[in-house]
Amino acid sequence: MLENALQYSHTLLKEVVHADDIVIDATMGNGHDTKFLAELVGLNGTVYSFDIQKLALMNTTELLNQNNLTDRVKLIQDSHANIDHYVTETITGAIFNLGYLPGGDKTEITHASSTLTAIESCLELLKSNGRVILVCYYGHPGGKDELAQVQQFTSNLDQHQYQVLEYQFTNQIHHPPILIAIEKR
Amino acid sequence: MLENALQYSHTLLKEVVHADDIVIDATMGNGHDTKFLAELVGLNGTVYSFDIQKLALMNTTELLNQNNLTDRVKLIQDSHANIDHYVTETITGAIFNLGYLPGGDKTEITHASSTLTAIESCLELLKSNGRVILVCYYGHPGGKDELAQVQQFTSNLDQHQYQVLEYQFTNQIHHPPILIAIEKR
Repeated sequence: MLENALQYSHTLLKEVVHADDIVIDATMGNGHDTKFLAELVGLNGTVYSFDIQKLALMNTTELLNQNNLTDRVKLIQDSHANIDHYVTETITGAIFNLGYLPGGDKTEITHASSTLTAIESCLELLKSNGRVILVCYYGHPGGKDELAQVQQFTSNLDQHQYQVLEYQFTNQIHHPPILIAIEKR
Repeated sequence: MLENALQYSHTLLKEVVHADDIVIDATMGNGHDTKFLAELVGLNGTVYSFDIQKLALMNTTELLNQNNLTDRVKLIQDSHANIDHYVTETITGAIFNLGYLPGGDKTEITHASSTLTAIESCLELLKSNGRVILVCYYGHPGGKDELAQVQQFTSNLDQHQYQVLEYQFTNQIHHPPILIAIEKR
């Protein structure tokens, strides 16, 4: 089976994130990506994980506790638009799930303006050969508009500084997420 | 580095084409994909390879001779629109390089009408979990039109029978090829 966008996002991160690295989960949600990144960076790495919803931090704390991964993770209840207030180190990877928190409040969605600010912050911090991965859900109201703005921004990144890849299934009627991968040269 | 479309086409074929398989190179060109497929299917497999240009058959024969791979390859000088005249067995993979033969006559390009007929023939022959891979060069005159027709055709394939994936770099100004992968369910 061809990997879906979520599976492929992990494949692309595994190739560039290693033990002791510093990485960002810009959309904590239920913590699945935070857990995945915490395993990749190991005991001496750091995962900065952001969400404005208290529920996200509660769910993620529980998931990390169950897996003995709390030591290397910093959970931050703030907008990812403020990443630059918290992270100053060089990162090797970052992941975004754009759209809403599955199982959470569906009126709490990501918005293009803060998303773009957060992506820019991650690109500033990103190491050469590092990757920022965006998994874009766009089936909800406003989703297509956010996607269009993110595609416009990423497809205009300087080709001498970045490679931008889009990975998407085109014949599925229920809007499966589109993956956008940005790699720094 | 993120794999380019050509590299990723080989990655996707390697996952589904194995020893003893029967496969199709629908656009022989200089024979690089034919050689790659001949190595994958091994001594008891078969590669059917198509091109209307005599030059393609000459170059490919030389490449296969140099690598002792002629035994398992059938080179056919005919349009890939006639694949169904030559192949009746079930295949596990097929590859198309759409556009023109690098180093060959640039007025000899693939055209959407015969391309679509050829893709349909390959899908008819394709085994469950098999893949038809299209690497679409579209920087030449008529290229964008062929690409649009191929995208229209593939994105309308029944989602219950096929998965259709597009893989493309969006911030490169020199039209790098777009990869389209079709997997049968």
